[in-house]
Amino acid sequence: MNDRETRSPGLERLLLFSDGVFAIAITLLVIEIRVPAAGPDPGEAALGAALLALLPQLIGFVVSFFLIGQTWIEHHRIGRHLAAVDVGTLWWNLLLLFFVAFMPFSTALLSEHIASRIAVTVYALSFAGLGLAKAGLWRHAVRGGQVKAERPVVRGISRRVWATPLTAVLVAAAAIAGVPFAFVGFALIPPIAALLRRLP
Amino acid sequence: MNDRETRSPGLERLLLFSDGVFAIAITLLVIEIRVPAAGPDPGEAALGAALLALLPQLIGFVVSFFLIGQTWIEHHRIGRHLAAVDVGTLWWNLLLLFFVAFMPFSTALLSEHIASRIAVTVYALSFAGLGLAKAGLWRHAVRGGQVKAERPVVRGISRRVWATPLTAVLVAAAAIAGVPFAFVGFALIPPIAALLRRLP
Amino acid sequence: MNDRETRSPGLERLLLFSDGVFAIAITLLVIEIRVPAAGPDPGEAALGAALLALLPQLIGFVVSFFLIGQTWIEHHRIGRHLAAVDVGTLWWNLLLLFFVAFMPFSTALLSEHIASRIAVTVYALSFAGLGLAKAGLWRHAVRGGQVKAERPVVRGISRRVWATPLTAVLVAAAAIAGVPFAFVGFALIPPIAALLRRLP
Amino acid sequence: MNDRETRSPGLERLLLFSDGVFAIAITLLVIEIRVPAAGPDPGEAALGAALLALLPQLIGFVVSFFLIGQTWIEHHRIGRHLAAVDVGTLWWNLLLLFFVAFMPFSTALLSEHIASRIAVTVYALSFAGLGLAKAGLWRHAVRGGQVKAERPVVRGISRRVWATPLTAVLVAAAAIAGVPFAFVGFALIPPIAALLRRLP
Repeated sequence: MNDRETRSPGLERLLLFSDGVFAIAITLLVIEIRVPAAGPDPGEAALGAALLALLPQLIGFVVSFFLIGQTWIEHHRIGRHLAAVDVGTLWWNLLLLFFVAFMPFSTALLSEHIASRIAVTVYALSFAGLGLAKAGLWRHAVRGGQVKAERPVVRGISRRVWATPLTAVLVAAAAIAGVPFAFVGFALIPPIAALLRRLP
Repeated sequence: MNDRETRSPGLERLLLFSDGVFAIAITLLVIEIRVPAAGPDPGEAALGAALLALLPQLIGFVVSFFLIGQTWIEHHRIGRHLAAVDVGTLWWNLLLLFFVAFMPFSTALLSEHIASRIAVTVYALSFAGLGLAKAGLWRHAVRGGQVKAERPVVRGISRRVWATPLTAVLVAAAAIAGVPFAFVGFALIPPIAALLRRLP
Repeated sequence: MNDRETRSPGLERLLLFSDGVFAIAITLLVIEIRVPAAGPDPGEAALGAALLALLPQLIGFVVSFFLIGQTWIEHHRIGRHLAAVDVGTLWWNLLLLFFVAFMPFSTALLSEHIASRIAVTVYALSFAGLGLAKAGLWRHAVRGGQVKAERPVVRGISRRVWATPLTAVLVAAAAIAGVPFAFVGFALIPPIAALLRRLP
Repeated sequence: MNDRETRSPGLERLLLFSDGVFAIAITLLVIEIRVPAAGPDPGEAALGAALLALLPQLIGFVVSFFLIGQTWIEHHRIGRHLAAVDVGTLWWNLLLLFFVAFMPFSTALLSEHIASRIAVTVYALSFAGLGLAKAGLWRHAVRGGQVKAERPVVRGISRRVWATPLTAVLVAAAAIAGVPFAFVGFALIPPIAALLRRLP
């Protein structure tokens, strides 16, 4: 059996457009990192120090790259189980892509102000928006009968999509409460997703 | 029945190339928003004020993101009903993509000069050009017999494609007449499209 | 008959990757145009004058957009007649994409120095390289038996692919000879292509 | 026989997303090259000298373009032999794309500091990471039974994937040892790949 045959071209284009936005956002992250200019002192020590000073930017890049990448993997999982799209799906997906396209900004903000509560909170809230849009997209597709999958698979995804917004809200709360480097809390997404999926 | 089989690879490539341009233009919007640099005063209040000062840019980003997104959804609707492409279609589509690719510039202009009549007029006129190119593309495809759809569907699209250029011209006129924040008029596109479609 | 079935996934990926590079290069052109900053004098007259001063940049953007667009249409035409790819095709195509990816730079150079002989010459030569790579790609594919098309179609394309490099070399020569605005000569590509195709 | 039919949509999306990241990274390289501004002295000689001063940047662009391009060709070769994907493949591929997306930064660093040991070492190490991720992706796919190819083809690829990380480590070692222009050593990748493939 070939499941391609049951997929509409409208769905394929939705996924391709989404892949484009994900690919561009994830690749644009790096252009916010400015290479140290060749100054009057061209010594190796000066360049080494300048590169070390870029460490917060590099951390921001790595964190956002893998968070967007993991979101893409989840979007990929959702896409595999869609059999059709309606206009509502297009708009929910557009909302999700809005938050994806916003990530280069919130990442640059976080990188430039890595110790600031406001920066971490903005970053975490924009990621919470991304997670909520993804959960909304899935819910809309399930209710509209556009999902073709076994019941346990649907239930598993219906739960694990909440891991991202939940974690992001926790990170935002921790940042507001003044916890330093609260963004490392994003590493909890995979275990929280696994936990949610196994709830009775 | 599988409608993929009746679609030519030439058409698929046209849609993929277009999706690429849409995806890139929509994602590039954000890089025009400059993150406030870490200044000598690293206080949270200073960062909060700097972010508030970015509000016009953020509004520009949100408006353009959803206007381009809505244009993509309309392009998607047109693409679903195309069964073939000729060289004329390629050129009409290229003209449409020209205005899509121009949006990051007109958006940045609007964001930087959100109270300026000239900026709003340039923005609205470039959006009118986008709408006219889309209407021209559809008309060309219908006349050339490249559209495969029921008559009422064709008639519905033939009318609703005029909603964007009509609204954009109204916004430009309002901006020239000095109406402040004329660009919020773009929110009228969906009701105008619905109205046009229902005309006798 | 469905010609999709005879196309290999290797070929499809080549075309998709190429479409990506074309779409990005064509969309990146605009970010070289800097929006006039909101200065101390926020008057409409100042903004109008600043926009007029951007005219050379806008001309460069329009010229390059349609030249790349036309190259994409030719690449699209070549792609329709390919039935397979080998490693040589991949490398010829990569060389073509190199010149496509270089266009945002040569366009910005032309825009910034629109009256300079050197700028027009660099622009025209990089476009000549693009045209030569496209001709080389086609020749390689024809010789390697990767093209599936009627003989007259093959002959027509084998001739018209020379229109771009020929025109570009003429433009470069005119620029070196000091002809102002030599780049308008690129408008000759379509008639030269039509002429070449009809040669006995 | 049509090998498309045996390919899952999940695999196609993986390849499309990857193509997007490759296409964007390879096209973003050029925007790091700043066009000389029109200064007070608009003479041709001044522009010629300014362009000559960009030579290191142009070299960095050319080297990285063809290194990324060659990596894409190898990724293309791997993709042709995949018949399925699992979550592990998605993550290995994401790691590979991380190093691809990092290339515009390491290229700009190399271009700006072409004589610096640190810059060449960072560049070479990031390329070594790219090569290792590619080798890991292939190894994971082979072990997981996701590869459908003749044994000698599998063995050939299993060997040649080591050419990139091996060469990159040699270049890094040479740079650390103070060999000037060590990055030209990357030209050894094709012969090393050919050599590795022929080992008994």
